Amino acid sequence: MQSRGFKMALVQMKMQREKAKNVLKAHKMISEAAEAGADVIVLPEAFTCNYSKFPILENAEPIDDYETNEEATAARMLSEAAKEHSVYIIGGSIAERRDDGKIYNSSPCFDKEGNLALKYTKCHLFDVEIPEKDIKIKESDFYEFGDNFGIFETEYCKFGIGICYDARFPDFSQVLCREMGAEFLVMPAVFTAPTGEMHWDILRKTRALDNQAFFAFCSAARPIEDPTLHQCYGHSSIVDPWGKVICDSGHEETIVYSDIDMTIVEECRSQIPCYSQRRHDLYKLDKVT
Amino acid sequence: MQSRGFKMALVQMKMQREKAKNVLKAHKMISEAAEAGADVIVLPEAFTCNYSKFPILENAEPIDDYETNEEATAARMLSEAAKEHSVYIIGGSIAERRDDGKIYNSSPCFDKEGNLALKYTKCHLFDVEIPEKDIKIKESDFYEFGDNFGIFETEYCKFGIGICYDARFPDFSQVLCREMGAEFLVMPAVFTAPTGEMHWDILRKTRALDNQAFFAFCSAARPIEDPTLHQCYGHSSIVDPWGKVICDSGHEETIVYSDIDMTIVEECRSQIPCYSQRRHDLYKLDKVT
Repeated sequence: MQSRGFKMALVQMKMQREKAKNVLKAHKMISEAAEAGADVIVLPEAFTCNYSKFPILENAEPIDDYETNEEATAARMLSEAAKEHSVYIIGGSIAERRDDGKIYNSSPCFDKEGNLALKYTKCHLFDVEIPEKDIKIKESDFYEFGDNFGIFETEYCKFGIGICYDARFPDFSQVLCREMGAEFLVMPAVFTAPTGEMHWDILRKTRALDNQAFFAFCSAARPIEDPTLHQCYGHSSIVDPWGKVICDSGHEETIVYSDIDMTIVEECRSQIPCYSQRRHDLYKLDKVT
Repeated sequence: MQSRGFKMALVQMKMQREKAKNVLKAHKMISEAAEAGADVIVLPEAFTCNYSKFPILENAEPIDDYETNEEATAARMLSEAAKEHSVYIIGGSIAERRDDGKIYNSSPCFDKEGNLALKYTKCHLFDVEIPEKDIKIKESDFYEFGDNFGIFETEYCKFGIGICYDARFPDFSQVLCREMGAEFLVMPAVFTAPTGEMHWDILRKTRALDNQAFFAFCSAARPIEDPTLHQCYGHSSIVDPWGKVICDSGHEETIVYSDIDMTIVEECRSQIPCYSQRRHDLYKLDKVT
């Protein structure tokens, strides 16, 4: 049965170096959000470790066989929390070690029974160098590229999942919404503070308005007290299909809530009917795989 | 010879009902901009008439045979002004009456010798109804659809031309920039004041950042003293490839100037290399015609 109203919670947690502590804190904050009535709970990118090269490699773990593999502590916690509270969990992302020994940046999504309903793997890796902002990160040195699109289907809507840098590629979101039916884009992300300052606000509004869909960024909190950790932007927030920010946050640890009314998608698409007015006789975007 | 620096002027003129007066004023403001050193001068959409259905039909005129057809007063003025001042003119738009008797919303662009180098015809028409904002406009009742893309080539860069509502269709700009080499999108526009309030800022930054190109909106001024005229948003402005607004305006009549350095395009595209990082194995946008 379809229901078009639900409560979403974005868990803007502050990560530490130790994975066990992060998994524990994530569990605690998920429980808090569920008790506050959230139906869909989102975690940040790389929530098992403060995002940076070495903790990611050290903390990588399997996802697919989370029910039986003892090492899959993070995915198992998510599954159990989803079942315990009967909530959907969009599990931010976990550094995933696959059987090939390689590491992927993957977002596991669990249904209300605790089943792994989707695993999306980041397919645009942040290989960026902006000397003026002192930014030099090459994710492809430690992650492999994903090669799938991720749709997480619920009774509220189809969520289209992306991770962080994916937000910069307009075609990616356009395919999720137009070709695959997503009405709500959710992107766990840990933008650096400077690139967040520059582009977070544009990107969150753009992806919502261009696709006439809801859009959520879920960031980690910024660990300003320890400059050796990754200084992410924070500002977890949700934008409605009109491009209006409906909830926002600063850079501190917090949970951001919003009551979502999915009928706004139909309203927006019928009043400004870009969906039907596109000129497919002039241009055509296709999903290749 | 390529030169990557130039001065752009956006002529945010206030239109009246009488075409002759609008053409005269446009000429005067073009001369003013040229004397201030502008190399590329942009006019607003429908600059020959205050935008609304009836003046558009009454004021429609031919463009193609502007050199010999006495009725082509607006296009001829643009050609003469371009030649007189040795400037490029992106001629906003003119309600164009073609030999088939139908009306099109077309942007004529003139080179420094006064030659019509491009005529772009708007290919997304504003058929929109937003009851809450008291907006109900159906452009396709009085305009025909265009079916071309418009690239205006100069020694500074290739300009990609769009008109107003075209800005809402991301694929359109993506094709102009990625497939056709535009590094500067220019869109004459007369957004309504309410839709401008909602979306002008998002769209101008989005089209710039997503395509890592310059983007300019050139609006008419808002005739607040006469509520029977079309109340457009104003705010003619330019955004750089990083999504930063480099010049802006209010809703009054004015000319907005900016010194443009096109080398920022290369800088932006090399530092955040989205152009080369797109996943054409997962999605593909193509120009159809």
